[in-house]
Amino acid sequence: MTQEAISITKATTKKEKPASDQLVFGRTFTDHMFILDYEEEKGWFDPRIVPYQPISLDPATMVLHYGQTVFEGMKAYLTDQGDVNLFRPEKNMERLNRSNERMCIPSIDEEFALEAIKQLVKVDKDWIPSAPGTSLYIRPFIISTQPYLGVAPSKRYKFMVILSPVGAYYKEGINPIKIAVENEFVRAVKGGTGEAKTAGNYASSLKAQKTVAEKGYAQVLWLDGLEKKYVEEVGSMNVFFKIDGEIVTPELNGSILEGVTRNSVLQLLKYWNIPVSQRKISIEEVYQAYKAGKLEEAFGSGTAAVISPIGQLAWKDETVTINNGKTGEIAKRLYDTLTGIQYGVKEDPFNWISKLD
Amino acid sequence: MTQEAISITKATTKKEKPASDQLVFGRTFTDHMFILDYEEEKGWFDPRIVPYQPISLDPATMVLHYGQTVFEGMKAYLTDQGDVNLFRPEKNMERLNRSNERMCIPSIDEEFALEAIKQLVKVDKDWIPSAPGTSLYIRPFIISTQPYLGVAPSKRYKFMVILSPVGAYYKEGINPIKIAVENEFVRAVKGGTGEAKTAGNYASSLKAQKTVAEKGYAQVLWLDGLEKKYVEEVGSMNVFFKIDGEIVTPELNGSILEGVTRNSVLQLLKYWNIPVSQRKISIEEVYQAYKAGKLEEAFGSGTAAVISPIGQLAWKDETVTINNGKTGEIAKRLYDTLTGIQYGVKEDPFNWISKLD
Repeated sequence: MTQEAISITKATTKKEKPASDQLVFGRTFTDHMFILDYEEEKGWFDPRIVPYQPISLDPATMVLHYGQTVFEGMKAYLTDQGDVNLFRPEKNMERLNRSNERMCIPSIDEEFALEAIKQLVKVDKDWIPSAPGTSLYIRPFIISTQPYLGVAPSKRYKFMVILSPVGAYYKEGINPIKIAVENEFVRAVKGGTGEAKTAGNYASSLKAQKTVAEKGYAQVLWLDGLEKKYVEEVGSMNVFFKIDGEIVTPELNGSILEGVTRNSVLQLLKYWNIPVSQRKISIEEVYQAYKAGKLEEAFGSGTAAVISPIGQLAWKDETVTINNGKTGEIAKRLYDTLTGIQYGVKEDPFNWISKLD
Repeated sequence: MTQEAISITKATTKKEKPASDQLVFGRTFTDHMFILDYEEEKGWFDPRIVPYQPISLDPATMVLHYGQTVFEGMKAYLTDQGDVNLFRPEKNMERLNRSNERMCIPSIDEEFALEAIKQLVKVDKDWIPSAPGTSLYIRPFIISTQPYLGVAPSKRYKFMVILSPVGAYYKEGINPIKIAVENEFVRAVKGGTGEAKTAGNYASSLKAQKTVAEKGYAQVLWLDGLEKKYVEEVGSMNVFFKIDGEIVTPELNGSILEGVTRNSVLQLLKYWNIPVSQRKISIEEVYQAYKAGKLEEAFGSGTAAVISPIGQLAWKDETVTINNGKTGEIAKRLYDTLTGIQYGVKEDPFNWISKLD
């Protein structure tokens, strides 16, 4: 594993930064990026921060044909004191290596990768937007770079990190979204790659997402691939239901992505002594709870939106409105607490924040 | 859809061609490639044959993160008369568009794409190897090229074609391979992307493939993702069993790739009046047939190996040897007929061959 010092080549010209209210997720990138190469004989080598620029790939590069690639998503938050906060970044690095293992990509030194991310954010610190709810999205990713058309793990890779200033996910606080339960397409199945943060899971979700978007739904709620019975995820978020006072979320089963926000929500709920369980939950049970007047809240959790209340759920021909289409009490409390911790305005009881020096 | 003429820029220096007996699948590429661009506002535009060269991609290019990409695989064969034969290329173009549909990629004009492939092969005609069993592998593929981290269909794409001279898959005729039945990992499930020729299916297969390779098996036999009971595919080939005089292959079910060679095998068997059925077949049934002395042959079919006899099958703790580990009569006849048609030495009763002018 590399212990080389990270070389830094500064950009000679700086790009213009977009206004805080003009930020669109994932469209604008900062002045620099991080690259680390891998070759089978050498391991990971040549860590460097360089000006943000296109990369040159042979048309036979494996990632373009066989999708051997993994990624992560995290954010840097600017506090009122001018500090830069990362939220549980070590969890993302752990998950990156779990994804690597599933996708036959060599593991990466988690501490070194995190150090590289911190140095990169420091170099582009003036890109972190300061308006409420804005942040700097961090995208670490690994691509297989061997030019070879055989179906086999690549012998070469690039680990890269790029940064994108992002706006508040919701313009005014948090707003409930409309979700359609997906009955035809499947995101993942046990034994597949659902647990890994890898390209194919996202490519396979596009068709379902496009179909429901045309009907006015924001996201898809995925059911299990075996029986299309049990709830798995919402879009690219984990999902929670409050039923008769208890918060229920699908247990990790090999096809659900283990979200860092999901894990944080579970810890907060326990800390608050709110009953919570991770278990199989069928969409039938959710609908029955609704009919019995016991479906009190539903929400998704993820890095992008933090907490996303579900105001309406459509399954087959039946549409139900949850909590009168309003943000629930628990969802609001989780959102306020998580964002409060992230922006350094609330106590951080679990030491989730890593500050940049 | 573009009707533009294809511009041709010839390479000023030519690469050295590898010797016919040194050809390794997918490692060497010819002097030229084909590119066609897509932008939402313009459709497909600027078809061009240019010197084989790296492409420049923004690090945020969608294909690197979300794997929205499809590909095809086909071959050009040089006959003793100096003709260049393509084998049912229109089937590959049809499948490319079926894959596009599943992956939310705009469809491509099949005739135009085929014309582009033919022109490219013509430009690099002297790269088609002439030794027995060798050919020029053709890899058409489409990648999503918008630099954007939102999970949505890309608004820009590149359709590209690259060529690679390939050796005989088997050095001396066809040799039976050892196959392990996969019990843990899943390739695809109905509602997923198994029917599409897309990157994620191949990325997800790497781990299982690597695991069985370490135990000395050439390929994995995939079972269905729901019950791990029914046979789906072998590695990246379709699979056939001869049981008590009848050839059985798994029916297309939404998770199996529809192979062009599979389709050709079915047509040939019907033409020869050999009983054949496409239906669900469990691995249990295959083993029972073996025990009853009725499992007469097993083989895979695909563009790379054409026909690949299965000499040994391992499922859980039970290993069975099929046809004494030798190539079966039907497998041999199919191999000889298909390669005979491809190289122009056998009659082509179905007009499968497209000749380059």
